[in-house]
Amino acid sequence: MRRNSGNAIRSAFAAFSLVMIAGPQLAQADENPVADFKLANGLEVVVIPDRRAPVVTHMVWYKVGSADERPGKSGIAHFFEHLMFKGTPKHPAGEFSARVAAVGGRENAFTSYDYTAYFQQVAPDQLRTMMEFESDRMRNLVLTDEVIEPERNVILEERSSQVENSPDALLGEEINATLYQNHPYGVPIIGWMHEIEKLNRADAIEFYDAYYAPNNAVLVVAGDVDPAEVRKMAEETYGQVARGPELPPRIRPSEPEQNTKRTVTMRDARVSVPNFSKQWVVPSYTSAEPGEAEALDLLSEILGGGVRSRIYQELVVKQGIASSAGAYYQGNSLDDSSFAVYGSPRGEATLDEVEKAIDAEVAKIATDGVSEDELEKAKQRFLRSMIFARDDQSGMARIYGSTLTTGGTVRSVQEWPDRIRAVSVEQIRDAARRHLDQRRSVTGYLLPEEGDRT
Amino acid sequence: MRRNSGNAIRSAFAAFSLVMIAGPQLAQADENPVADFKLANGLEVVVIPDRRAPVVTHMVWYKVGSADERPGKSGIAHFFEHLMFKGTPKHPAGEFSARVAAVGGRENAFTSYDYTAYFQQVAPDQLRTMMEFESDRMRNLVLTDEVIEPERNVILEERSSQVENSPDALLGEEINATLYQNHPYGVPIIGWMHEIEKLNRADAIEFYDAYYAPNNAVLVVAGDVDPAEVRKMAEETYGQVARGPELPPRIRPSEPEQNTKRTVTMRDARVSVPNFSKQWVVPSYTSAEPGEAEALDLLSEILGGGVRSRIYQELVVKQGIASSAGAYYQGNSLDDSSFAVYGSPRGEATLDEVEKAIDAEVAKIATDGVSEDELEKAKQRFLRSMIFARDDQSGMARIYGSTLTTGGTVRSVQEWPDRIRAVSVEQIRDAARRHLDQRRSVTGYLLPEEGDRT
Repeated sequence: MRRNSGNAIRSAFAAFSLVMIAGPQLAQADENPVADFKLANGLEVVVIPDRRAPVVTHMVWYKVGSADERPGKSGIAHFFEHLMFKGTPKHPAGEFSARVAAVGGRENAFTSYDYTAYFQQVAPDQLRTMMEFESDRMRNLVLTDEVIEPERNVILEERSSQVENSPDALLGEEINATLYQNHPYGVPIIGWMHEIEKLNRADAIEFYDAYYAPNNAVLVVAGDVDPAEVRKMAEETYGQVARGPELPPRIRPSEPEQNTKRTVTMRDARVSVPNFSKQWVVPSYTSAEPGEAEALDLLSEILGGGVRSRIYQELVVKQGIASSAGAYYQGNSLDDSSFAVYGSPRGEATLDEVEKAIDAEVAKIATDGVSEDELEKAKQRFLRSMIFARDDQSGMARIYGSTLTTGGTVRSVQEWPDRIRAVSVEQIRDAARRHLDQRRSVTGYLLPEEGDRT
Repeated sequence: MRRNSGNAIRSAFAAFSLVMIAGPQLAQADENPVADFKLANGLEVVVIPDRRAPVVTHMVWYKVGSADERPGKSGIAHFFEHLMFKGTPKHPAGEFSARVAAVGGRENAFTSYDYTAYFQQVAPDQLRTMMEFESDRMRNLVLTDEVIEPERNVILEERSSQVENSPDALLGEEINATLYQNHPYGVPIIGWMHEIEKLNRADAIEFYDAYYAPNNAVLVVAGDVDPAEVRKMAEETYGQVARGPELPPRIRPSEPEQNTKRTVTMRDARVSVPNFSKQWVVPSYTSAEPGEAEALDLLSEILGGGVRSRIYQELVVKQGIASSAGAYYQGNSLDDSSFAVYGSPRGEATLDEVEKAIDAEVAKIATDGVSEDELEKAKQRFLRSMIFARDDQSGMARIYGSTLTTGGTVRSVQEWPDRIRAVSVEQIRDAARRHLDQRRSVTGYLLPEEGDRT
């Protein structure tokens, strides 16, 4: 979407991960089970009944993201998200958005490493219209130079304002490029500036033809709807779109064994309070051994998931040396992803003190583990804190969409709370010991123009 | 070649660069001009008469190296170099090498980022035989699983012994992966272990068919030969090989703007004396503005090219804090390459002192430049020190081969000494100022298991 796509890539991804973990809380009561079926052309459809309000969330998720781009073509996935708001022979540019606005709805779109999704939230009687528009642009976009050339400038401007003008965003890109030595998660979702500049009509058409097809998409409908009716409407709209070419398995270059401790330092005159973040490559929900991703999620909760976490209690509350500090795990991805701790000093404290104190908390868990009681409370907190998402229909849709486009299933969403409950104290300690090794970490420092880290 | 291909990648590349710059010294006397022509099938032929001894160097250079590999297929260029020593229907495996040995010759092969080359040195009356063998394996290799499977183990063993068992080599790989945030020079020439393990027959055949063809190769013959005779023999052997598919321009993903200072640290119990190296991405002879690569070559000579260099004189001779210290520039590549300084402490001195002293030398040139006299002496040293290569026939062949496979021409080799002589003191200072910016450097540290850098 033009308003908020491709921006704040790392923080958006982290926030999204938090929403994602709410997913399993959404398991429907038995009288309203989630429906999951495929149309003849390969489109997977998930219907999530939610009768609390007369509103419906309509999302189409494509199984393609920036990590599927060809080398040298970074940014094409996000570029294409913009192009989806251009016209088709049936509906000129702007008509879809105008219609959503006219019926009091809202819309959005976003591009991630592993998926690209389009979203509208409207009254249930508008669902068919949304399906007509959305299925039309799945294959019928008019992609002329007149459409593409001006949009490239829009995207370059977007990158300029959101990345080039933000020391934090620029540093984040180079941390990622350093963390991933081989995998395309090291390339920014929005694309490198010099590669966006060269994207053209041929690239757009190649991308559209390769990835935008019903057999590479998941339709998620959540709201006050009947699955049988949704199915009928989907068949009459999306069902008319021809199946696209079969796509090969999504196998990206993977990481080699990492053997070094790395740092990435950016100094900028605009920085007043320094900060640091330390990252590790760790398994994702899709690439992990059973239980491992769940343990990493709970480890992030215990270590730095909120005000009850060890890092927050020790650094912010007890020692008073940090203005902010925490941890997060980006488990919701197709391939090995990242775990991070971060912090920023307060008052007279130095960034070095904050980093050392956080390192000590990581080491403590790796050495001594956690108690049964602490883990149990973390599980309760972790599961309970997601109740917001249960009340957010679009949150529900997002959880299913992101899971189904990163190798998961409806069942894996629904069984997730039980898997979280099953994590043992040994698994938490082992996750810290195995994955949070300082000798294989990447630490980013954002510092003022002058002065030392200490 | 099985004995020394793909090994010691970084140091070999650096050493090679040193040989390369000898090239222009080889300009032949007018009575024996270098001949340069193309066969009808697209094979470029360079003949370098050298009548001092009854010996001929025969090399075929393919315009393909590890940086041309597809993502996830790292190591296939080097793997293929090994496969070239397997058999054809006409000549079973081992026959070519046995023949070279039988006539008292020697052979070799090597893979780089930008090229792969095969080499024999024999008596002139064996040249036609070499051409017959070499042109035969250009297209007729038997690539069965029986050939490929055992060779993969040979290569895995090669990587184990030369990289996995060498902290220095492992660190070098991760320095490169950190230095190049987007360009494939960040991937090791020999390939990542986990990717080599998956290379198979289909990969080998695809690579062979795409890149091994006369129109993607350069034949270099140096020695006691007559260009007209070489041409006739080449037409009768290589000339019989069908032209391959036209190849697209060699455009690899290029580097984004770099904004951070990075470090890569490896600790290993086997390290007794620590060392560091600091790298920058800089233009190569092919990607540079006119005169810029020549200035970088002379800057490396002045800064750390030998015992007369500033770094050596200051750190080793005067201060006595370093056991080794210097600089090198890898200018001989198709795309932007690297410039490095390095050092190791002596006696009571620390690595940190050595790094700071080298940083000071870099800063001094960027600030104050160099004197006319110092530059003139450096030019003389730089050009004169290459006299060894003039006496080395295979060195001559290498210079032409590597230049012609990285975007250069016979003429650019021959005019190179004049371009070196034309570099001004301003260009040296500007090269240091523009390219050796600490805020965009990558520093690698090899340290003992315990203890600090200081």
